[in-house]
Amino acid sequence: MAGPITPVEGGTITTAQGFKAGATYVGIKTFSEDKMDMGMLLSDTPCSVAGVFTKSSLVSPSVTVNRETIAAGGSVRGLVVNSGIANAGVGEQGYIDAKEMAAVAAAGFGVKPEEVLVFSTGVIGVELPMTLIKKGVDEIELSDDGGNFLARSMMTTDTRTKETGVTINLGGTDINISGVAKGSGMIHPNMATMLCFVATDAAVDQDFLRFILPDIADSTLNMLDIDGDTSTNDSLIVLANGAAGNTTLTSSSEDAGAFKDALTEVLVQLTRQLAQDGEGASKLIVAEVEGARNLADARMAAKTITSSLLVKSAVYGSDPNWGRLIMAIGRSGAETVESNIDLYINGVCIMEAGKPVPFHRDAVVALMRGDEVTFGVNLNLADGRATSWGCDLTEEYVVINSAYTT
Amino acid sequence: MAGPITPVEGGTITTAQGFKAGATYVGIKTFSEDKMDMGMLLSDTPCSVAGVFTKSSLVSPSVTVNRETIAAGGSVRGLVVNSGIANAGVGEQGYIDAKEMAAVAAAGFGVKPEEVLVFSTGVIGVELPMTLIKKGVDEIELSDDGGNFLARSMMTTDTRTKETGVTINLGGTDINISGVAKGSGMIHPNMATMLCFVATDAAVDQDFLRFILPDIADSTLNMLDIDGDTSTNDSLIVLANGAAGNTTLTSSSEDAGAFKDALTEVLVQLTRQLAQDGEGASKLIVAEVEGARNLADARMAAKTITSSLLVKSAVYGSDPNWGRLIMAIGRSGAETVESNIDLYINGVCIMEAGKPVPFHRDAVVALMRGDEVTFGVNLNLADGRATSWGCDLTEEYVVINSAYTT
Repeated sequence: MAGPITPVEGGTITTAQGFKAGATYVGIKTFSEDKMDMGMLLSDTPCSVAGVFTKSSLVSPSVTVNRETIAAGGSVRGLVVNSGIANAGVGEQGYIDAKEMAAVAAAGFGVKPEEVLVFSTGVIGVELPMTLIKKGVDEIELSDDGGNFLARSMMTTDTRTKETGVTINLGGTDINISGVAKGSGMIHPNMATMLCFVATDAAVDQDFLRFILPDIADSTLNMLDIDGDTSTNDSLIVLANGAAGNTTLTSSSEDAGAFKDALTEVLVQLTRQLAQDGEGASKLIVAEVEGARNLADARMAAKTITSSLLVKSAVYGSDPNWGRLIMAIGRSGAETVESNIDLYINGVCIMEAGKPVPFHRDAVVALMRGDEVTFGVNLNLADGRATSWGCDLTEEYVVINSAYTT
Repeated sequence: MAGPITPVEGGTITTAQGFKAGATYVGIKTFSEDKMDMGMLLSDTPCSVAGVFTKSSLVSPSVTVNRETIAAGGSVRGLVVNSGIANAGVGEQGYIDAKEMAAVAAAGFGVKPEEVLVFSTGVIGVELPMTLIKKGVDEIELSDDGGNFLARSMMTTDTRTKETGVTINLGGTDINISGVAKGSGMIHPNMATMLCFVATDAAVDQDFLRFILPDIADSTLNMLDIDGDTSTNDSLIVLANGAAGNTTLTSSSEDAGAFKDALTEVLVQLTRQLAQDGEGASKLIVAEVEGARNLADARMAAKTITSSLLVKSAVYGSDPNWGRLIMAIGRSGAETVESNIDLYINGVCIMEAGKPVPFHRDAVVALMRGDEVTFGVNLNLADGRATSWGCDLTEEYVVINSAYTT
């Protein structure tokens, strides 16, 4: 019997038992007092691992190396990450550097290179400074509560870390699932986040973990849109080390569904944090679609709402311009019958059966001035439902992105 | 034998012979000195007609009425258009109003309702004020040089009219093809422009016109992206009245290809003007992709570049951040081989065979400070080539769209 999914106050990736993390500043990223640019995560024992990566046809060689490592089927002990340089668009040197980064980190950990995953995020087209990477591995001190340092070392244009953790009792054993993420621009489905690491002290069968992760990614990170762009480096990784001592979870376990729900909840929380910290964002946008013909239609409709620049601009201006919701739903590709559609803004019905409902405009504007704007859509056709997350579009987004390398 | 395609100085839709246009201000749109909000176009004689409409599943009933008119297969004499209100999202009244608008205009023209097309653009969710529409029909005076008035009456957030015309000699007869368009936000493939009307005094077989128009739209207006959104009202209409006295053009005419090229040129010019006047735009962006596996791949790659917010923001900042081009090409869905890719910015090679080329950064920044930024991409795989058009993303876009109805 599974207990409730309970948030862990101050949860970060090292909230899961048997994981240590640390970070340092080596000089890859422009210096600022509270920033770090290189981090590492180590499990005391070998982990089951699953990963979902960018669907871009032009990927960082670091992604290629991780795909190979995971495809080989062995267990993993840890990871190393740098921010500031993406290790992408540098020709064949990128693959050589990614392999060397894994080897250097593995030597630091005292494990094998094929047990270490490598991640880079930042500017495209610049080679990794391997001397600095080696210096970082020497300097980083791992600790049981180093998760926040790791989260900080991954940040690029992020204004805050993304960290969360939950605990759940499965069959009498408390297990932890916790994670960190980074990304605030170049975020769009396939994959949504640039980098997201999740650790759990549950014992989880690797095949089971790999079976459930793509589905979870599709309903969480892949339903996030900041600016419609997909990075060459986007990666989601889950490591499970079994330190909690539970009976290994498989697809036939009684608690398989409960574990999947708890892992989904961690990714929903990280997705929300990523959306809230979108480049220049002032508000979180949540689109909840129900009544769609099927799941695919619900996802298309929800994603089209949160990725529409006109919807995003209207939210920034606290403008209940519901015509833009109709426009977005109409172009989404989802099946619709206009006279069936109900629309809600933060719970207030503004369209019923395809016709505008007289609503108290000032009240809705006031609701939209809050930190979170929720669009509810009922297509009233069948049972498809989905949620997507995004953020508003502000002048600040343009300012940030028109002067990134200059 | 066809002569060269020659631009007509000051060309507008009434440059084509036998077409009259006019416009007025009736009070649908907020008043400003030089704006009009209702216009009409009439051909002296019946026209062959072809149309391409929005692919949104939620369309304005005006689009529905035009689809029915065109599907009925008869000839068309003219059109009526209003700006300020889109006649969309108003329930069944929208269809009734669209039919009445056609009937009122037809009575004004002295033709049948089924010979008149109707167009509306503006805010969604507000009913058309039919009394004002009737007043407009009474007031509008048609003239042989009224094309500019028609172009002005279609504008919403447009800052200038979009008008062009070309002439070409086909088999000894000079024919004119000319057009007007409007649209500066909610512009994205399927359809790209909100409203685009083209008139030609050539005699063109209706079946031939309908055969070539979708293909032309796909390589012009559907390769335009301002902000990724698709309107409920987007429409492209071509009317051919035969006033030039040429032998009717059909798919088997010697000059069929030359006519298609000339019509394409008119639409390229209007597409460029629409991109240049994108909401908040300061620069035109042109992406020219060659060497793709096929046409579909070339179009995907080109469109993804001009629709990427990160690319658009970089252009605004005159930032030669070519990593964002790689990102866009990679996520476009086009087949790529990284080590084959060449990139150019305004003709300067910045990547060759997948590797950055040392370029004079200040010189490229200076080139990017001009009115037009061209990205050249050679995927070096096969012969697929395509061009797309867009504009940069500026703070002004956000300002315009966060306060549209408020």
